[in-house]
Amino acid sequence: MIRLEFSINLNYEIDSPGSDFIFIIQASQTNHQFIVSESLSVNQDIPLASYIDKRTHLRLLRLKGVPGILNLAYACVVDLDHYTAIPSQIYETPISDLPGEILIYLYPSRYCQSDFIKDIAVKTFGNMIHGYSRVQAIQDWVTNHVSFCNNTSTEHTTAIDTYLSKTGVCRDFAHLMIALCRALNIPARFVTGIDYGSDPILGPTDFHAYVEVYLDGRWYIFDPSGIAIPMGFVRLGTGRDAADTSIATIYGSVRGSTPIVSIKAIPNALGVVLIPEHVSRAISTDE
Amino acid sequence: MIRLEFSINLNYEIDSPGSDFIFIIQASQTNHQFIVSESLSVNQDIPLASYIDKRTHLRLLRLKGVPGILNLAYACVVDLDHYTAIPSQIYETPISDLPGEILIYLYPSRYCQSDFIKDIAVKTFGNMIHGYSRVQAIQDWVTNHVSFCNNTSTEHTTAIDTYLSKTGVCRDFAHLMIALCRALNIPARFVTGIDYGSDPILGPTDFHAYVEVYLDGRWYIFDPSGIAIPMGFVRLGTGRDAADTSIATIYGSVRGSTPIVSIKAIPNALGVVLIPEHVSRAISTDE
Amino acid sequence: MIRLEFSINLNYEIDSPGSDFIFIIQASQTNHQFIVSESLSVNQDIPLASYIDKRTHLRLLRLKGVPGILNLAYACVVDLDHYTAIPSQIYETPISDLPGEILIYLYPSRYCQSDFIKDIAVKTFGNMIHGYSRVQAIQDWVTNHVSFCNNTSTEHTTAIDTYLSKTGVCRDFAHLMIALCRALNIPARFVTGIDYGSDPILGPTDFHAYVEVYLDGRWYIFDPSGIAIPMGFVRLGTGRDAADTSIATIYGSVRGSTPIVSIKAIPNALGVVLIPEHVSRAISTDE
Amino acid sequence: MIRLEFSINLNYEIDSPGSDFIFIIQASQTNHQFIVSESLSVNQDIPLASYIDKRTHLRLLRLKGVPGILNLAYACVVDLDHYTAIPSQIYETPISDLPGEILIYLYPSRYCQSDFIKDIAVKTFGNMIHGYSRVQAIQDWVTNHVSFCNNTSTEHTTAIDTYLSKTGVCRDFAHLMIALCRALNIPARFVTGIDYGSDPILGPTDFHAYVEVYLDGRWYIFDPSGIAIPMGFVRLGTGRDAADTSIATIYGSVRGSTPIVSIKAIPNALGVVLIPEHVSRAISTDE
Repeated sequence: MIRLEFSINLNYEIDSPGSDFIFIIQASQTNHQFIVSESLSVNQDIPLASYIDKRTHLRLLRLKGVPGILNLAYACVVDLDHYTAIPSQIYETPISDLPGEILIYLYPSRYCQSDFIKDIAVKTFGNMIHGYSRVQAIQDWVTNHVSFCNNTSTEHTTAIDTYLSKTGVCRDFAHLMIALCRALNIPARFVTGIDYGSDPILGPTDFHAYVEVYLDGRWYIFDPSGIAIPMGFVRLGTGRDAADTSIATIYGSVRGSTPIVSIKAIPNALGVVLIPEHVSRAISTDE
Repeated sequence: MIRLEFSINLNYEIDSPGSDFIFIIQASQTNHQFIVSESLSVNQDIPLASYIDKRTHLRLLRLKGVPGILNLAYACVVDLDHYTAIPSQIYETPISDLPGEILIYLYPSRYCQSDFIKDIAVKTFGNMIHGYSRVQAIQDWVTNHVSFCNNTSTEHTTAIDTYLSKTGVCRDFAHLMIALCRALNIPARFVTGIDYGSDPILGPTDFHAYVEVYLDGRWYIFDPSGIAIPMGFVRLGTGRDAADTSIATIYGSVRGSTPIVSIKAIPNALGVVLIPEHVSRAISTDE
Repeated sequence: MIRLEFSINLNYEIDSPGSDFIFIIQASQTNHQFIVSESLSVNQDIPLASYIDKRTHLRLLRLKGVPGILNLAYACVVDLDHYTAIPSQIYETPISDLPGEILIYLYPSRYCQSDFIKDIAVKTFGNMIHGYSRVQAIQDWVTNHVSFCNNTSTEHTTAIDTYLSKTGVCRDFAHLMIALCRALNIPARFVTGIDYGSDPILGPTDFHAYVEVYLDGRWYIFDPSGIAIPMGFVRLGTGRDAADTSIATIYGSVRGSTPIVSIKAIPNALGVVLIPEHVSRAISTDE
Repeated sequence: MIRLEFSINLNYEIDSPGSDFIFIIQASQTNHQFIVSESLSVNQDIPLASYIDKRTHLRLLRLKGVPGILNLAYACVVDLDHYTAIPSQIYETPISDLPGEILIYLYPSRYCQSDFIKDIAVKTFGNMIHGYSRVQAIQDWVTNHVSFCNNTSTEHTTAIDTYLSKTGVCRDFAHLMIALCRALNIPARFVTGIDYGSDPILGPTDFHAYVEVYLDGRWYIFDPSGIAIPMGFVRLGTGRDAADTSIATIYGSVRGSTPIVSIKAIPNALGVVLIPEHVSRAISTDE
């Protein structure tokens, strides 16, 4: 069991009165991602409203800022106790066995137009043996065919754009993998979180976007960007694509500065510091 | 209180074994759209699974057909007892007061890319007095600027396409109105239903796509197509856009014929036959 | 030398006075496509203007119709005396040797957005040996990956749409092949013509869209649709894509009926009837 | 008569042998833009090829660079002796009177998809009195509705994108104006040049993109960006849109630095220094 301590600091300058903010910066709480402690402080004396989506465990933090500086500081200690499974034993759930609330993750969404990419997905992956290995093949295909490159994509960039340009950032990798999975009738969704990156090689931790795919009755983690360690992901927001899971949605005239994110592994309940590492087993923090 | 008796008959020829079907053909059940009786018969001797989405009241009917002919016959008697309100008294709910589960209807979706149309929406409707009248202005704008024309749009056609081409069918009118509302931070969603159309002027009843907009704590009905009588809509599926609410989603090699839909107003609990008509009050079948 | 006799009949009903028509229905005249005789008759007593584009040999026929019926009947006898070459001896012209007026055929155009498909083109065809065989590989790839299917594309459909949907008509096949060639820095252009199709297997003759690729100092004919016999093509319009080469561009309120096209092989100057057939040599009617 | 002395310096670092360059940096020569003197120096000892497009007067400079540094220095003294006319006396040329070689400027192109914007153009400008004033209304509409903003558009951005986002740079303003004109059957084309900007208010001179519209038998200059003085434009490249008129098209692995452009008004043949200024007359450097 990995214990991570992380913090997120956000700073804004608000011009217009009554600017609404919707944040997704708090860790989701599941049986496999367990919140040990957390704290939230906001410099303005304003009411905070929270909302938890029961289906995805996403937590919204909402507030109406007043003109001036707005600081949010969120800190959290979280235990990651992944469900793991052997890839070769994980099947694709037949459509008829998919729970009703999972079906929306089969349909196209704003950034994942699986309807447009169906032919390509079927031609490339349609004849592979169904199961975890096929999804891993999709993930590897995206990792190998798309180049990570800042400033090549925008907030409007879709899976189709990325399929054509073959460049993007983690969000774009995720959208493309999701579109390909859905085109093959495999439920897939978009996750924003933070990655464990506080070492010299990986560089500093940061927000990250990755994928969860529903296989064999459970959502498994995939990282098509290939630049992070899935076992170190702390899950914040979960939705159909980036449209649902923005770290901060802001209504009003507001300027922001770069978020400050930090993370470290700390001694767990047994007093042992475990560092996230690449593993060959399939992992999940579902439910 | 309007009492409607309607039926939907669907016929398919199935080639491949194990073809999955997901139907949204059953009436949603709310306090204002109350199911008096219903029946469903399927000619194949196969298990049927149903799922009700608690948030939208959408009902999925799922089955795995076997090769051969598949017939579904659904019949229903439904009471429409609309919640009504005076338009001038209906306010737009401030973002900060929107319930958490409503927020997804502010975000762009597959066919309603509100992010692309923000500038146009703000320039056209941004300075209007907020409230039901503004949404009605959006509806009227769509009705007046888009021409109803079969075969000008496809399954891929989006709100942006319709904004540019200014032609489409009811689904396209609905997508464009939804995109405009969301671009103005007004929650809006897509509804499929059947309309009351069994008279000489309106032509036969059929499946219809329309819009619900969240105002003042409630989802109100709008019909940007302008070709039907909102008071006669029986609500079947509700979602972000057409991607969520297909009458029939089919996985497999299947040929279908045109659905047969019929409807008539029958004596209500008081023994009176009330015919849907255009009304000036705002109407809702929410919850 | 093949001698073909063909005719094109066009019929319109004109509502608005002063409707402008621009036709491209006359055979281009080159050293290898030689007009033996031709006639044009128009039922309205109106002036006809013609324009020949010196670079492409495209001939425009322009007129201003008056309300009522407009009939055009064009008949032509043409000798096709193809330049032919052995594919393995045809090189790709280096960019620096391309004549200045050819360069525009390297750039993206309305329906052939080669800029969007560069990565895909390079990954798929970039490592092949340069020359006619590479272009043939592109042609074969399009033929094999795209399905010919009426009513799946519209006047707005582009090479990218076709690349994704993998369905279309001859125009779409041509646009995709052109986009792929340009993405690899091979000049390619769009041609409309009529095909020789008056036999039981090929079905009736009709307008056709195909491709010319500039190799080794000459424009060679390619037919990615794979449904016709290139040796039987009579070239009418040549341009960057379908935007330049419409059979009929009409300004005004006009209704048209299906064009009537007929063709047959007739005795050539030597008194021999030669029928177009598939050949392994590269062919050109350039200049 | 304005006499301008300008220079363009381009610097590249070439990695791959045989990198092809196609430049459009030399002033077009017309009766109204007359080259008094010019010089070109290239630091590499390589052959230069030039090509003049007779229709547009665009001049291509082509070379194959060798690895290392490549410097180009072009200097030119040019006399601008504009053809001018009174706007209210300039008519739109009827389609039937448009010269054949002008027609391609009516058709959609890569970045100016006039086919998609027809409905909008007709609704907004269709009922205006035809003539120069209508084109000026289109120009003013673009100037007033689009915000000049760097880094909001990319090389793929089209007129439709700009119409929706309402932001862009001079190239995007030009594409949108061109698409609107063509949608109204008014020939319009894209021009790259340099502007006269060496004063404290306008900032330094730079490359600029603007529009020419064919009215009354002549191409007139329009500047929808509204940030420059049309009378001070020196025309370099002319084409259907930015796809045809890139300052530098490069094939190979090459890094470039920001071009250095300078301009100043110098004494003309009469010894008088005339400074470009805004004028109310229509101006043209055509032919």
